[in-house]
Amino acid sequence: MLGSTHGTLTTDSRRARVIACGEQRPGPAVHDRVDDLDVGGRPLYADVPDLTRFFRPESVAVIGASDAEGRPNTGITRQLLAWAERVGARVLPVHPTRPSVFGIPCAASVAELPTGQVDLAVLLVADPLPVIEELSDAKVKFAVAFASGFAETGEAGAEAQERLAQAVHRSGLRLLGPNTNLNAFEHFRDDLTGPAIALITQSGHQGRPVFSLQQLGIRLSHWAPTGNEADLESADFISYFAEQPEVGAIAAYVEGIKDGRAFLLAADRAARRRVPVVAVKVGRTEAGARTAASHTGKLTGADDVVDAAMRQYGIVRVDALDELQDTAALLARARAPLADGVAVYSISGGTGAHVADLAAGLGLRLPRLSDERQAELHQWIPEYLSVANPVDNGGHPVGDQRGRKIIDALLADPAVGVLICPVTGPFPPLSDKLVADLAAAAEETDKLICVVWGSPVGTEPAYREVLLGSSRVATFRTVGNCLTAVRAWLDHHAFVDGYRSPFDEAPRTPSPSFRKAEALMSPGRQLSEHAAKQLLRAYGIRVPREQLVTSAAGAVRAAAQIGYPVVMKASGAQIAHKTELGLVKVGLTSASQVREAYRELTDIARYEGVSLDGILVCQMVEQGVEMVVGVTHDDLFGPTVTAGLGGILVEVLHDAAVRVPPFGEDQAHAMLAELRGRALLDGVRGRPPADLDALVEVILRVQRMAMELGDRIAELDINPLMVLPRGQGAVALDALVVCR
Amino acid sequence: MLGSTHGTLTTDSRRARVIACGEQRPGPAVHDRVDDLDVGGRPLYADVPDLTRFFRPESVAVIGASDAEGRPNTGITRQLLAWAERVGARVLPVHPTRPSVFGIPCAASVAELPTGQVDLAVLLVADPLPVIEELSDAKVKFAVAFASGFAETGEAGAEAQERLAQAVHRSGLRLLGPNTNLNAFEHFRDDLTGPAIALITQSGHQGRPVFSLQQLGIRLSHWAPTGNEADLESADFISYFAEQPEVGAIAAYVEGIKDGRAFLLAADRAARRRVPVVAVKVGRTEAGARTAASHTGKLTGADDVVDAAMRQYGIVRVDALDELQDTAALLARARAPLADGVAVYSISGGTGAHVADLAAGLGLRLPRLSDERQAELHQWIPEYLSVANPVDNGGHPVGDQRGRKIIDALLADPAVGVLICPVTGPFPPLSDKLVADLAAAAEETDKLICVVWGSPVGTEPAYREVLLGSSRVATFRTVGNCLTAVRAWLDHHAFVDGYRSPFDEAPRTPSPSFRKAEALMSPGRQLSEHAAKQLLRAYGIRVPREQLVTSAAGAVRAAAQIGYPVVMKASGAQIAHKTELGLVKVGLTSASQVREAYRELTDIARYEGVSLDGILVCQMVEQGVEMVVGVTHDDLFGPTVTAGLGGILVEVLHDAAVRVPPFGEDQAHAMLAELRGRALLDGVRGRPPADLDALVEVILRVQRMAMELGDRIAELDINPLMVLPRGQGAVALDALVVCR
Repeated sequence: MLGSTHGTLTTDSRRARVIACGEQRPGPAVHDRVDDLDVGGRPLYADVPDLTRFFRPESVAVIGASDAEGRPNTGITRQLLAWAERVGARVLPVHPTRPSVFGIPCAASVAELPTGQVDLAVLLVADPLPVIEELSDAKVKFAVAFASGFAETGEAGAEAQERLAQAVHRSGLRLLGPNTNLNAFEHFRDDLTGPAIALITQSGHQGRPVFSLQQLGIRLSHWAPTGNEADLESADFISYFAEQPEVGAIAAYVEGIKDGRAFLLAADRAARRRVPVVAVKVGRTEAGARTAASHTGKLTGADDVVDAAMRQYGIVRVDALDELQDTAALLARARAPLADGVAVYSISGGTGAHVADLAAGLGLRLPRLSDERQAELHQWIPEYLSVANPVDNGGHPVGDQRGRKIIDALLADPAVGVLICPVTGPFPPLSDKLVADLAAAAEETDKLICVVWGSPVGTEPAYREVLLGSSRVATFRTVGNCLTAVRAWLDHHAFVDGYRSPFDEAPRTPSPSFRKAEALMSPGRQLSEHAAKQLLRAYGIRVPREQLVTSAAGAVRAAAQIGYPVVMKASGAQIAHKTELGLVKVGLTSASQVREAYRELTDIARYEGVSLDGILVCQMVEQGVEMVVGVTHDDLFGPTVTAGLGGILVEVLHDAAVRVPPFGEDQAHAMLAELRGRALLDGVRGRPPADLDALVEVILRVQRMAMELGDRIAELDINPLMVLPRGQGAVALDALVVCR
Repeated sequence: MLGSTHGTLTTDSRRARVIACGEQRPGPAVHDRVDDLDVGGRPLYADVPDLTRFFRPESVAVIGASDAEGRPNTGITRQLLAWAERVGARVLPVHPTRPSVFGIPCAASVAELPTGQVDLAVLLVADPLPVIEELSDAKVKFAVAFASGFAETGEAGAEAQERLAQAVHRSGLRLLGPNTNLNAFEHFRDDLTGPAIALITQSGHQGRPVFSLQQLGIRLSHWAPTGNEADLESADFISYFAEQPEVGAIAAYVEGIKDGRAFLLAADRAARRRVPVVAVKVGRTEAGARTAASHTGKLTGADDVVDAAMRQYGIVRVDALDELQDTAALLARARAPLADGVAVYSISGGTGAHVADLAAGLGLRLPRLSDERQAELHQWIPEYLSVANPVDNGGHPVGDQRGRKIIDALLADPAVGVLICPVTGPFPPLSDKLVADLAAAAEETDKLICVVWGSPVGTEPAYREVLLGSSRVATFRTVGNCLTAVRAWLDHHAFVDGYRSPFDEAPRTPSPSFRKAEALMSPGRQLSEHAAKQLLRAYGIRVPREQLVTSAAGAVRAAAQIGYPVVMKASGAQIAHKTELGLVKVGLTSASQVREAYRELTDIARYEGVSLDGILVCQMVEQGVEMVVGVTHDDLFGPTVTAGLGGILVEVLHDAAVRVPPFGEDQAHAMLAELRGRALLDGVRGRPPADLDALVEVILRVQRMAMELGDRIAELDINPLMVLPRGQGAVALDALVVCR
């Protein structure tokens, strides 16, 4: 696996544990509904740990403190002492033999520490396991374990980590690590003001660029280096940071998500609080190692699910650390947009056109400025230059009092929510003045001003002093990162403005369908088509009129009742690829054809060695748009719902969208909007538009099945779901269900 | 149009002119076959102007020189004088009234200049047109026109520009501009060595970041700010720069391509010389404003054609200026790859995994290091860290003599062609040593070493002194730009290694098919299906056996000759959407069905008011994969060839690939490889693989039609082309041809 070098263990047992251990945790949970569960037994609200005394301990015990020259622990002890002095914390070194470390008297063991008076223990010992119980006795609230050699090293390490995790759960303390470091206690600049970035990284090195933003004037409030996440995980920090008033955005570097549900609940919490979360999640190219009998199971890989889950809950996913840094900085500091229109303003028409092209490519909206606004701008900008947006000033107007007037006129335009000024290179007579005008204008507007300082050099005073000196101008070094960040900023605000938590509306109790469904399940087995359709019917999903028959005469009677023409299919558990085997006969219009088909189907089944529970005689359903809708079990998030276009071509093109329950009607519509072949549903070449409402209803009913039966269904696949013209519904023509 | 603010005029007439004027140009053409034309009358070889005296003039006349305080021309004159002093050129100011400018005696007019002794005239006058003829009389070789107000301002300006262009052609001199500047005569650092970047930009501002690379130690040799390209265009500079020994790569910022063919010929020339061309081409989001009756005509937009053309001839297209700068710098300076394997090496496992994930996402190959190599690395790197690739050293080994040994071992691996070392942030005890080791190792290897200095600050000595001080380490600031550049570098070398110029093999004389085809054309009209198929047959493309009949009895006779079952279709010029109108009857198996179909088709045609030339009786062709193959006229490149998957789904998904002739069989195969639904051709769900050779043959025959008939065909569309199973060929079931 390319994704992770930190040993995050993902286990299903973990979920139960989180719920069970909630009440033992130190500090009051901010949310008091942590025992509220959905119909599948999954928590509905994040369990938010109170980490105040972790990040601001009054007393810190250092287990394994040292002042011997050349020992790694000595450097760490020194760093902790420096940090403690800055923030006024008391350090209690613990060492079995030394009387003191750096002049501070040592306790010989954890048992000697004052009970209930230590907030945090830093474990510099090779094996933290034996210490945990002692810490618990001393009522220490938090511990940080540096030791490596756990799940990141393989099987044996993973077992050691599981033992450590279990000891921590029994203890009641909360542990950061193992395989972590002191990033939480670095030197944070306290002279910077305004909304801050809170940082979460599984790898310390990967957090360094974001942390370095302080040198560019951007405030950081916290850094949680989560390491192997034997206990505290990224989700805990997301939830906690979302509650802290100084946090403007959360930046996260995630190698592995430990508990999918906890991650979504944390994201949900951040979304409710309108706190943006920007994340790198490694694993884009992870091989989707799934084996699945169903079609939908193969349509999407594990990373597609992560991607969808992040989008559902508003997490901004970026690929690289420079994007993380630039996007988090903008989202932390920029106020809410007053309009979604982007104006591009530059010294050069070429630059403006280029940036506008790239912006449009990212889906940003560049409104054409009104004729009145253009006339106003032409007071200061020569008539032959285009000021419709992008606005080209031709250079000279920047150099005098016109420069500021143009900026103010653009900011005054109600269609403009953000002004983007690309400066491709320093030309001090113009660029210094432009930048100074922008910095001054930024102090007087609630709108966003972005400057792209395109010089690759970066030592220019206009950049280092004027731009980085402004807390109001958002400064970027590349157009790409600027546009990505602006897009994320607009998307974030649109998302939180419209956000209704799907957890609030998730079902807590089984539907009436559930009991009927339970009776149909057959653990470890694939259901027959007939049984699978009964399951769908139990959940109110329409299936063709059909009867299971076991004789040719029975088939003819059934056909007469159902009405000609009919379809006949072999039915039995474990049958797959019916069409390829010739086990489907369509368009039968007479009793003799039905009799003949019955004989043929049973002959083929005998020849192929297929065991039948009978022959299905089914109503022929008219033409519509073929879709597939299904449930797949994802290792991280549990049951997921997939919808895609059916038919052989799209089987090749994998045109499908996936969602993690719970999700609402809006997300079901969003799934359809994601399909590349979406136009088929809207009607092409004179075909009528398909019944989207019925399709969305099926997706939501399948979601209900996923939530209620998720632990009992390995796979569920409606293929095809025939979506009829608008007003006529949707019919599941075939279904495959594999029970767990 | 978002794309262009420089008034490049694209005219069909331009092509003819380039050919006609070739022999008048100053300096010998480097290639002596400029009058070699293909069967469509298009040039086959770039006409390479000799621009030596443009870039290194011995004498420069400045028309409109000034030393009056505050006048823009004064600044320009001053800049030119400084430049001339540096390079040893003589400046000849021209001003109607001043006796001298900056102490240099003025000529009162161009006529007073010494005949045949001025290489370059810089025109600082508002209207360059009247000066051109005088310059011609003085046998001035080159001119640069600064004046704006030409095609970039609209209709009237475009007419003025056309007049200027015509005057230039008559004159025999070569003009840069109008609407340009002095970028060609900036201060180029002459202390930098190694292969240089030659820069071409339509906008001066847009070239600034690349030009600024000199401050980071990267050599620039030329800068051509082409402005409106009334005469000299980007293609001329590409061809010229490709001949210059000091040029390692050409970086171009292109708003509009003036002459598509000239652009391709220039790219071809650079590819033959193995000189990489990296280009931003604005217009990604340009609305594809085409109107087309055919299907293929709507499948691809104008930018898709530009994109394909660039790829065909090996131009590396990038989106943003920072990518242009980083990619061009790498391609200029890095030696040819010794292997395509990428090794990622870092202080942190997290960093390595993340970069490896992004690299794999871009299609880079990260070979797993051999067990022997891993054992070697584990001499220096703790056993529990992964060294399979990515290689994680865990930090400490960097700090001592092990650091260099690890680097050398990686570079010694034959599977490794490039070593990428991401440094997320400065941690001097490790990062300074790592960077110093890399810089030292780079001096002793022919392999590529890339460092990503991820700190957003950029003032660190390890970056500014060690990395920027090395001409052998390729230094980047973002992982994305590093990987993009490495990918382009590997792709470029693979491309030029396998490059055979399609111009060498393009047909010069019409095929025997051409005369037959000519007789079938009907200018300004859409051909009947029958005539269109005759045209295909003339070019050796298989069509079903078919007869055009005008009576029911004739239809029955035809069907008997063709063999049942048959298809019958209404045939006539200007008929479109036959299927929707019910003008196609398939699967007719008897004389009575044929008679009945004849009556129905003629009835419908009468009812719909469709004028018929008869009814086509056609052979039924078995099932295969439906494709579309067609010719569309592109405004910039002329006739282009498109191939896509047929059928309604792909009509929705627009799964098609386009190429600009001439192209070879390899490109026809590459078109098919680009299709998202390509797997359909390879056979899915037990279907046999399609006859790819036959499909490629049809594409090449359609290309031949495009080349020979391109000026007479507005659109040609084979839809569907039924590609039968391997060995059975491909049949054009329907065709649409619109003559120009």
